[in-house]
Amino acid sequence: MLKSMPALQKLETDGVFQMRRGRLSSPTFAYETWGSLNAAADNALLIFTGLSPSAHVASSVADPSSGWWEDMVGPDKPIDTDRFFVVCVNSLGSCFGSTGPASINPDTGDYYRLDFPVLCLEDVAKGAALILDHLRIEKLHTVIGASMGGMTALAFALLYPARARALVSISSAARSLPFSIALRSLQRELIRKDPAWEHGRYDFSQGPTSGMRLARKLGMITYRSADEWAERFGRERASDPGAEDPPFGIDFEVESYLEAHANRFVGTFDANCYLYLSRAMDLFDVADHGGSVDQGLSRVALERALVIGVETDLLFPIEQQEALAIGLQAHVSDVSFRRLSSIQGHDSFLVDMDRFRPAIASFF
Amino acid sequence: MLKSMPALQKLETDGVFQMRRGRLSSPTFAYETWGSLNAAADNALLIFTGLSPSAHVASSVADPSSGWWEDMVGPDKPIDTDRFFVVCVNSLGSCFGSTGPASINPDTGDYYRLDFPVLCLEDVAKGAALILDHLRIEKLHTVIGASMGGMTALAFALLYPARARALVSISSAARSLPFSIALRSLQRELIRKDPAWEHGRYDFSQGPTSGMRLARKLGMITYRSADEWAERFGRERASDPGAEDPPFGIDFEVESYLEAHANRFVGTFDANCYLYLSRAMDLFDVADHGGSVDQGLSRVALERALVIGVETDLLFPIEQQEALAIGLQAHVSDVSFRRLSSIQGHDSFLVDMDRFRPAIASFF
Repeated sequence: MLKSMPALQKLETDGVFQMRRGRLSSPTFAYETWGSLNAAADNALLIFTGLSPSAHVASSVADPSSGWWEDMVGPDKPIDTDRFFVVCVNSLGSCFGSTGPASINPDTGDYYRLDFPVLCLEDVAKGAALILDHLRIEKLHTVIGASMGGMTALAFALLYPARARALVSISSAARSLPFSIALRSLQRELIRKDPAWEHGRYDFSQGPTSGMRLARKLGMITYRSADEWAERFGRERASDPGAEDPPFGIDFEVESYLEAHANRFVGTFDANCYLYLSRAMDLFDVADHGGSVDQGLSRVALERALVIGVETDLLFPIEQQEALAIGLQAHVSDVSFRRLSSIQGHDSFLVDMDRFRPAIASFF
Repeated sequence: MLKSMPALQKLETDGVFQMRRGRLSSPTFAYETWGSLNAAADNALLIFTGLSPSAHVASSVADPSSGWWEDMVGPDKPIDTDRFFVVCVNSLGSCFGSTGPASINPDTGDYYRLDFPVLCLEDVAKGAALILDHLRIEKLHTVIGASMGGMTALAFALLYPARARALVSISSAARSLPFSIALRSLQRELIRKDPAWEHGRYDFSQGPTSGMRLARKLGMITYRSADEWAERFGRERASDPGAEDPPFGIDFEVESYLEAHANRFVGTFDANCYLYLSRAMDLFDVADHGGSVDQGLSRVALERALVIGVETDLLFPIEQQEALAIGLQAHVSDVSFRRLSSIQGHDSFLVDMDRFRPAIASFF
């Protein structure tokens, strides 16, 4: 599954890694870095990713392939690697270098699969803290995350109040609400109901590709917005009706688009890792850190925060993000809230660079 | 599949029924009626249903079981059966008495299954016109429909401009847009990817129950709204975590709710019928009747129209319904548009009676 990732660095740990709901023996934490830490060690930025990206947020000399946020991170870009030392981690539980369900359990010599403990985003944040220790970064300039990464960034700020001066939360939230929980729960069920999932014991060269394709299609539908698709596809008919017979093959261009996206996704992400990370998003709740969201947020010790949300986001609706900004304002002196009118829904931070680049650049 | 339906009447036809994209031999059209046709035969209302309901819109002496719109239709109710002769049809292609993919093809003696021709909502409207002929109803007081039924009502008004004085369209639209097409396309794929579908040749006592459950869950998620669920479930944990093992069983109450709904749906609707009706919604486009939506709408000869939409509807967004009302205004002298603030999304017309009953009552 792993492609060659020459820029990827790995922190191999020793001993027990205590998680919120379990423990791992000697996990590995993978990350990439860009730029240089200055003498005062006060120019470090930490980026947490969404569910599926790797740590390769941008190209580098070591790995010139485009990163998943290539237009945002690099020399003279909004997250300026000439100025900042940027660290992006591969989440614990993922399959791009960090230990996850597709890794070998050193205690048994077999793959973890479903023996992997219940994963929480706090565990992902804790792994990143070990990377910062290793890099001798005491305190971050800013911790940044979008989508699941925004929740992880918040978890980091709650668990390690002394370790981040600022937070940038993009299209994220203080907790998952039932609409997004329901969608993710259904995505997981689509994977689990694929007979090829085999209760997690599938052959890694195959696995539940049908379930993963369906889950990806549902993801794509909810990551974008109805308005964008109406503009982009309207009722355009598909040029290639696909292999299947009418009346249930592909009629419309939007169906071709989903088909192509689903096919590209399959084989790039381990199904069990997807299940664990997806559920970790459902479980995350700032209220677990103090009894209520507000009491949880009172634990942060940030100097500044920026919350960016998008009006067409179905999964992390703008109201929830405004609520996060208001919640932070009670405990952080300098909080900005940016409400963007992007029409690309939850995925806007990846594609609507005209709005997102200035919003991020002005913060730095 | 059919339960006992003592009130159900059946029009058995003879000869070829020409469809938009095919033909049927001697199809049956099932319907129920309430109230009495007056001497002038000008008090008839025709109700088209959404995708899954039967013709049993309300209880009656012949069938006292509750109908799917029990609070709306009956004596002294907004659709007053003391005043109107109400006809509700089971859509062609469905499985509650009218001919559909689960019926026997008289030409072969075998079930239609996927030999059923591509179904269009115009075909459903045409079947209803035969029922009106049979009942000696030349011109309806009003044709009414919600969701798919609203599209069918519109198709009826386009095909038979002389046969309806008024139209009530509820949570519907002049055409399907790519977001709702994508969701329905995925629902159909969930059913087709269930190995038990067997390309439509399943045993009727079993069939693709797993695919139908998944499709129903996706339906439920998109029929309601994020706001309603946030209010109703919040992050409440499920009291019964279900039979499956953690970490991928049921954690949250919203997951239990979907599970219960999906289980109730299975066995009540034929999978192939679902596929045909679902695709018929995607295919419907007023623009097919004249080159553009506006040219299509110019064919209606209505005296009055009421368009009702709900602000939280994901599948038939309020903007689309406002556009339908505006489109009708160009050709109908008396058009009302009601924008309701129900939080129950697309399903509001079935549950938010406090808003829907007065909206309908004031029209009649």
